Amino acid sequence: MDASFKKLLDISKELALLGYAQGVLGWDEQVNMPATGAPARAEAGAYLAQKAHEILASPQVGELLEKLSGWEKAKAPDSFEGASIRRMRRNYDKAVKIPAELVAEMSRASSEGFQTWLAARQEKSFRIFAPKLQRLVELQRQAAQALGYEKEPYDALLDLFEEGMKAALVEGVFQKLEAGLMPLVQAVAQHLERVDDRFLRGSFSEEDQWKLNLEALDFIGFDRERGRLDRSAHPFTSGFYPGDVRLTTRFGDTLTSALFSTLHEGGHGLYEQGLPAEWWGTPVGEASSLGMHESQSRLWENVVGRSRPFWERFRARVTHYFPELEERSVEDFYRAVNRVEMSLIRVEADELTYNLHIFLRFRLERQMINGQLEVKDLPEVWNQAVKETWGRAPTHDGEGVLQDVHWSGTSMGYFPSYTFGNIYSLQLVETARREEEVARGMEAGDFQPLGKWMREQIHKRAGLYSGMELLEKVTGRGPDPQPYLAYLRTKYQEIYGF
Amino acid sequence: MDASFKKLLDISKELALLGYAQGVLGWDEQVNMPATGAPARAEAGAYLAQKAHEILASPQVGELLEKLSGWEKAKAPDSFEGASIRRMRRNYDKAVKIPAELVAEMSRASSEGFQTWLAARQEKSFRIFAPKLQRLVELQRQAAQALGYEKEPYDALLDLFEEGMKAALVEGVFQKLEAGLMPLVQAVAQHLERVDDRFLRGSFSEEDQWKLNLEALDFIGFDRERGRLDRSAHPFTSGFYPGDVRLTTRFGDTLTSALFSTLHEGGHGLYEQGLPAEWWGTPVGEASSLGMHESQSRLWENVVGRSRPFWERFRARVTHYFPELEERSVEDFYRAVNRVEMSLIRVEADELTYNLHIFLRFRLERQMINGQLEVKDLPEVWNQAVKETWGRAPTHDGEGVLQDVHWSGTSMGYFPSYTFGNIYSLQLVETARREEEVARGMEAGDFQPLGKWMREQIHKRAGLYSGMELLEKVTGRGPDPQPYLAYLRTKYQEIYGF
Repeated sequence: MDASFKKLLDISKELALLGYAQGVLGWDEQVNMPATGAPARAEAGAYLAQKAHEILASPQVGELLEKLSGWEKAKAPDSFEGASIRRMRRNYDKAVKIPAELVAEMSRASSEGFQTWLAARQEKSFRIFAPKLQRLVELQRQAAQALGYEKEPYDALLDLFEEGMKAALVEGVFQKLEAGLMPLVQAVAQHLERVDDRFLRGSFSEEDQWKLNLEALDFIGFDRERGRLDRSAHPFTSGFYPGDVRLTTRFGDTLTSALFSTLHEGGHGLYEQGLPAEWWGTPVGEASSLGMHESQSRLWENVVGRSRPFWERFRARVTHYFPELEERSVEDFYRAVNRVEMSLIRVEADELTYNLHIFLRFRLERQMINGQLEVKDLPEVWNQAVKETWGRAPTHDGEGVLQDVHWSGTSMGYFPSYTFGNIYSLQLVETARREEEVARGMEAGDFQPLGKWMREQIHKRAGLYSGMELLEKVTGRGPDPQPYLAYLRTKYQEIYGF
Repeated sequence: MDASFKKLLDISKELALLGYAQGVLGWDEQVNMPATGAPARAEAGAYLAQKAHEILASPQVGELLEKLSGWEKAKAPDSFEGASIRRMRRNYDKAVKIPAELVAEMSRASSEGFQTWLAARQEKSFRIFAPKLQRLVELQRQAAQALGYEKEPYDALLDLFEEGMKAALVEGVFQKLEAGLMPLVQAVAQHLERVDDRFLRGSFSEEDQWKLNLEALDFIGFDRERGRLDRSAHPFTSGFYPGDVRLTTRFGDTLTSALFSTLHEGGHGLYEQGLPAEWWGTPVGEASSLGMHESQSRLWENVVGRSRPFWERFRARVTHYFPELEERSVEDFYRAVNRVEMSLIRVEADELTYNLHIFLRFRLERQMINGQLEVKDLPEVWNQAVKETWGRAPTHDGEGVLQDVHWSGTSMGYFPSYTFGNIYSLQLVETARREEEVARGMEAGDFQPLGKWMREQIHKRAGLYSGMELLEKVTGRGPDPQPYLAYLRTKYQEIYGF
């Protein structure tokens, strides 16, 4: 048994090495590669992915898993062995259930979908994109059938991104969150003029912003000796290895736009740096789930980065680089970075209304996958729903149904992770604050104890548990929107004074 | 046959994709990677190399080559098919002749050798490095035996870097070159004070130097839309794909130190950008040889970059960024960048004395590999030879036998490529100048016709021929140091006035 397990770990390492190479290629593509390098990059990426799929889906893996299924040593669910086998089994099952032709077809449809989506968004015309989306929905429905599900096809896709998640659970949690959020949103909407962030708009040297962003990473404990920050069109994090974590950011319209991108990616980066290096390449060497990953980025971007104690500490660093803001108080900064705008664009949304965007996308993609909504009807349903919630409809598809990249590929089932990240983050903070040092630190703008707690409770456990299991183990319960709601209520009532 | 050839091309593509991933990983390692990322990078690199070796040395490749050996279509030596099969055969033979254990042993010894060399150089003590070098020489002797040779073991290693090259040929060419060079060197040595480059030393903004370097790349025709320039500790070029060519440079003690590094790598880069994209991934998709590659870098660094017409054009760009040099004439620049220093350090050597360093290294490594020189005697022999040629011995091993990285790995046989690059470059220029447009352009500081000629005659032919075959095809003869000698004689007689 020990020998079989060792063999399984060897295969896992091989998969990790192929994934590692893909990761470096992908990072370089977005950060450094000239556009004319694309043909070779696409071929190399596809080749490495295909090799990894061949290895993962090989009969040998199935036989090893079969053999190891009765292994006494693996029975303890918390054991490295048990968790490794369980995670490998999960990956193997998914790899063998989806036929190779379907994988290839999905890959092709994604490439075409992305290109067509770019063109359609440019033209602000959903009609251009509709046939490709139609095809992508069909393929994802086929994938759902192949993967299997108990209640509804969409569950099979959800599970790809958050193990054990079900649409009914998502809807239940979202309804609770929505019920609490909407009165808040409506109250804030009456007083939008009470918060002003115009002083953050204007021209700020990117060189100085860059230095400020590096300081922000140092401040939250991201180790820049074991990683780096670069620029890219769309910010992202690549954890090649705990000692080599790459973050990217981009500059935007306001002084804090890059800062919050950086804090967000920095949160992802802390998770990646906190994974145990000795587990690297094993099935449990990765983060527990996407939702849990998002909890860490949201934590540092919002719960920390948009808190008053953070600005009590960090204001001086901003005015150091931008002395023209010297007259602005901590309160000015705190209020400005929490300004609610009711944007129709998800990626520009504030903390309060962000989740409304997710509710909408989750419900529509669930209906499409379950066969209850036809692609051709999508823009109308989208616009209607936006009008009901935001009080105004998009003026064109570019600021409506075409705004997000996700549906141009095969990522249906992914959107809920964002909101679960928010929910998890506050459940974790609520638990962490039971430790006096953490609570006192957070009040005083010292977030080191909080970071240390996350490292011990979340990062170090890597993939020993699924995201929801880990949440339950650490907080004592499953996804619960109440701490998050309470946090938003307190924060926005105070800022907007109602 | 067509099907077998197609299969061979598929295998070649697979090898190219693995090599491509290794290339990107290697580039990133030197340009971006934090040191703490090294463990994963080393594992991934070794894994990809091992996979490539397995594929190349597989019986299937041997069978395909066997089958294709009688193919009529491949008989024309200039044909794509014939050249592909020949090149694949060469790579396959080398891969199968060296046993896997020896490959692994050489890889391990190289890693250890490099680390020990770093420490030894730090301590300026050859004794620290000697046991590792001893081992590396033994392993390379074993490799030479495995590869086979007619006259002497060193020939087998030479052939790894320059197909068909023999030690006797190298020695013959070097003797001719040396005989012509030494009187020149001695004459210049009498008048070293006649050239002054002190105005190039001092403090020059790296930001402005960077812009100047980018302009230099544009000037020589390197397409920065299909490549990029970065910084690294040791300048190098990686041609991932003709549309994605990466150069690096580094800043040094003089204003022109980075500039000449950039021009050198730019020359390599022009070769890589000029390879036909449609041949990428085929056995002939790469440059013809290392020596030919070096001919292109030396061409742009020295023959162009250290020419008077270049400075007639480029001086204004330098003074644009560094107006403090406005008083310096074209002549001042031209003379300064051609200053002879008789440095004991190869990488700091001027154009005139550079080759003396190569003669020394070639002769010593040839003797070591052929069993005529013992490692323990190396420093004494080195120092003695240096004293005879340079008139003074190194004051310690750090500026003597430990100065170069090459012997810390398994690169014996590589050094001659540098001098052959110099020799080839002038043979090519001599031929190119028979076209009036090229000659007129070179006089007028317009190097576009020269670049175009190299693209047509050298770059576009990629690996259709070996380096020496291509040289003969284009210039009508094999390696001949006379054009290079004539060039040096004219240049240095004029500059140093003797």
